[in-house]
Amino acid sequence: MVADRFDWMRTPRILFGPGSLAQLGETAGTFGQSAAVVTGARALRQSGRCDQALHSLAVADIRCRVYEVGNEPTPNLVDELAADVRLHGINLVIAIGGGSVLDAGKAVAAMVPQTHPAEAFLEGVGTRAHDGRRIPLVAVPTTAGTGSEATANAVLSRVGPDGYKASLRHPNLVPDVALVDPELALSCPAHVTAACGMDALTQLIEAYVSVRASPMTDALAQSGLVAVRDHLMRACRTDAADVNARAGMAYASLASGLALANAGLGVVHGLAGVLGGLYPVPHGVACGTLVGVATGMNIAKLRETGAAALQKYAEVGRFLGARETDVDACCNALVAILSGWVDELSLPRLGEYGLPASGLAHVARRASNKNNPVRLSLAEMESLLSERL
Amino acid sequence: MVADRFDWMRTPRILFGPGSLAQLGETAGTFGQSAAVVTGARALRQSGRCDQALHSLAVADIRCRVYEVGNEPTPNLVDELAADVRLHGINLVIAIGGGSVLDAGKAVAAMVPQTHPAEAFLEGVGTRAHDGRRIPLVAVPTTAGTGSEATANAVLSRVGPDGYKASLRHPNLVPDVALVDPELALSCPAHVTAACGMDALTQLIEAYVSVRASPMTDALAQSGLVAVRDHLMRACRTDAADVNARAGMAYASLASGLALANAGLGVVHGLAGVLGGLYPVPHGVACGTLVGVATGMNIAKLRETGAAALQKYAEVGRFLGARETDVDACCNALVAILSGWVDELSLPRLGEYGLPASGLAHVARRASNKNNPVRLSLAEMESLLSERL
Repeated sequence: MVADRFDWMRTPRILFGPGSLAQLGETAGTFGQSAAVVTGARALRQSGRCDQALHSLAVADIRCRVYEVGNEPTPNLVDELAADVRLHGINLVIAIGGGSVLDAGKAVAAMVPQTHPAEAFLEGVGTRAHDGRRIPLVAVPTTAGTGSEATANAVLSRVGPDGYKASLRHPNLVPDVALVDPELALSCPAHVTAACGMDALTQLIEAYVSVRASPMTDALAQSGLVAVRDHLMRACRTDAADVNARAGMAYASLASGLALANAGLGVVHGLAGVLGGLYPVPHGVACGTLVGVATGMNIAKLRETGAAALQKYAEVGRFLGARETDVDACCNALVAILSGWVDELSLPRLGEYGLPASGLAHVARRASNKNNPVRLSLAEMESLLSERL
Repeated sequence: MVADRFDWMRTPRILFGPGSLAQLGETAGTFGQSAAVVTGARALRQSGRCDQALHSLAVADIRCRVYEVGNEPTPNLVDELAADVRLHGINLVIAIGGGSVLDAGKAVAAMVPQTHPAEAFLEGVGTRAHDGRRIPLVAVPTTAGTGSEATANAVLSRVGPDGYKASLRHPNLVPDVALVDPELALSCPAHVTAACGMDALTQLIEAYVSVRASPMTDALAQSGLVAVRDHLMRACRTDAADVNARAGMAYASLASGLALANAGLGVVHGLAGVLGGLYPVPHGVACGTLVGVATGMNIAKLRETGAAALQKYAEVGRFLGARETDVDACCNALVAILSGWVDELSLPRLGEYGLPASGLAHVARRASNKNNPVRLSLAEMESLLSERL
């Protein structure tokens, strides 16, 4: 196993811990003195955290221009923001928000030095390869889910009948700094915490069982899975005061980003990407609602072929709390644990976002199986979607 | 635990795997077209691997100037090489060798843009702080031990009565790329493999129990310790053909570098640094000969104070193969495992390198306890040195 080849991209510098937001100005100041602050539209500003960030930047003599991003970023929005950043001679992007905001900031930093529009560089949509040039980027996550603060891609989307979710990707797009302050998630509502947490969990599982997994991605995924086991339910159940649970999930999310950036993801993310382009289903909900049934389907299919990946699913089960000793029993326990969490967190079903039974085949046809430990048929993907319709 | 703060520096891009040396030219070419190739004096050239590396660089149109480094680098040597690199307008350093060679290359890359001599920047020796500017650096380890391909410091030394080993250190000194090809260690003699492997093992243990350990350093240290358990004895015992054992130890060494760069080290490295400055004892031998008795001493002292670090030593014992369930028994098993390896690998005693019994107090007085999980007295450090005299 260790003898296999692997490629690992540079990580960000990581500043992790409650209160680390106070280091934002000093840290950002090493990269530039004129910053585009990309942030979400409401919650963050209401909590006063945005003011705290801007204060830290002001103390460090960093001029700021604030850009509010309300929804998942479209290529057009990114082009508009990049044009404005260019116009104002800004030399640094600071993204403070959830996954969509971090991806918006990442894409803006990557588009500032380019002459073609963002859509031209999107995987599966455009035809150009991004050359990796960008302006400096500091990522400050306020939810614990996507791990975007540690990944090399920005997901841009267009929702609708011809909708898509597609990535702008290059190893150089990994942020220079990930500043992870768990206190920023304290005001995150329980249903958002649950969906984001299930996204992180799905990323950890899919990276761990990925055909591209390495000892390094395995080590970080394991560490993140243990953090999910110890903290997910507490972060969702309790009120805002449990910083320790928030820190556990912030760490799990960060670890999931590092793992997925280097190991890739599986069928749940393949399906969630398509679903998010066609229907207004939040990414974390799509992952969370599918991860239990998809894991069960992968395991069932692997049992037919006797593949070694079953051992890795069994290990995931043990990291998440299964006490069984043999592989089969641990795999069963894993599916039970995941299904239990899906129920306990009341993850919405896909039908609530307008997905009709007649639309399953279309979603399955467009979904990628890449890096999934086993190839699922269209009928199998339709079947697992229908279980969560 | 997870709620604690931690700071993680950027890792190198890592290209890991047997045969990855063939990617050297293509990879290095993204950083520059005129390279200083810093390499060891004998073994590597004899094995033909150096020719293979130079061929890969020639194919990528990279002009090379080769610098041979015979021993542990001195500040003067680094200054001389940096002056020559400047003179020839070279814009990239490629270091191919053991820990000393990688440190030499790292220091040269860091000194090219500076106007003061290297000694001025050495911790505890000079008075200047390095500003982090360097030319690009690709590190290609040929032994599995120091993990220098992933760390932020270069150890420079002067041996003799006023000798020292001291670090040139800055987070920016982490190489841009670590190209880890386990085949390069195939020709490494058994006694060198053993000493280097014990250095990696010591780094993994000291980082894991360090007062600065984080979930990320713990995850990587755990993963490296398991690799040591599975591969150290095989890499030392068998002939050159066991690429899998070499890969396991190459991974362990890499993981130890990532862990120590972010968690620091303990008393064994504190003592080994002093010993290496005063006597011609190879660094891996100093670590390997001391790690068993030092671990025993740390555990004994922690038992007096009932510190939580005992739990972490017990975990190290389990990662290395202990089957015991309670903490005390696992700690005992750990000491037994380490002492067994020290004996089985015939690690030389310190007296063989000229350390007299009368010199122990001087070594202990100069040694750092920094990041060690418990503070050892001078008498305790003398005592553990005398056990391996």
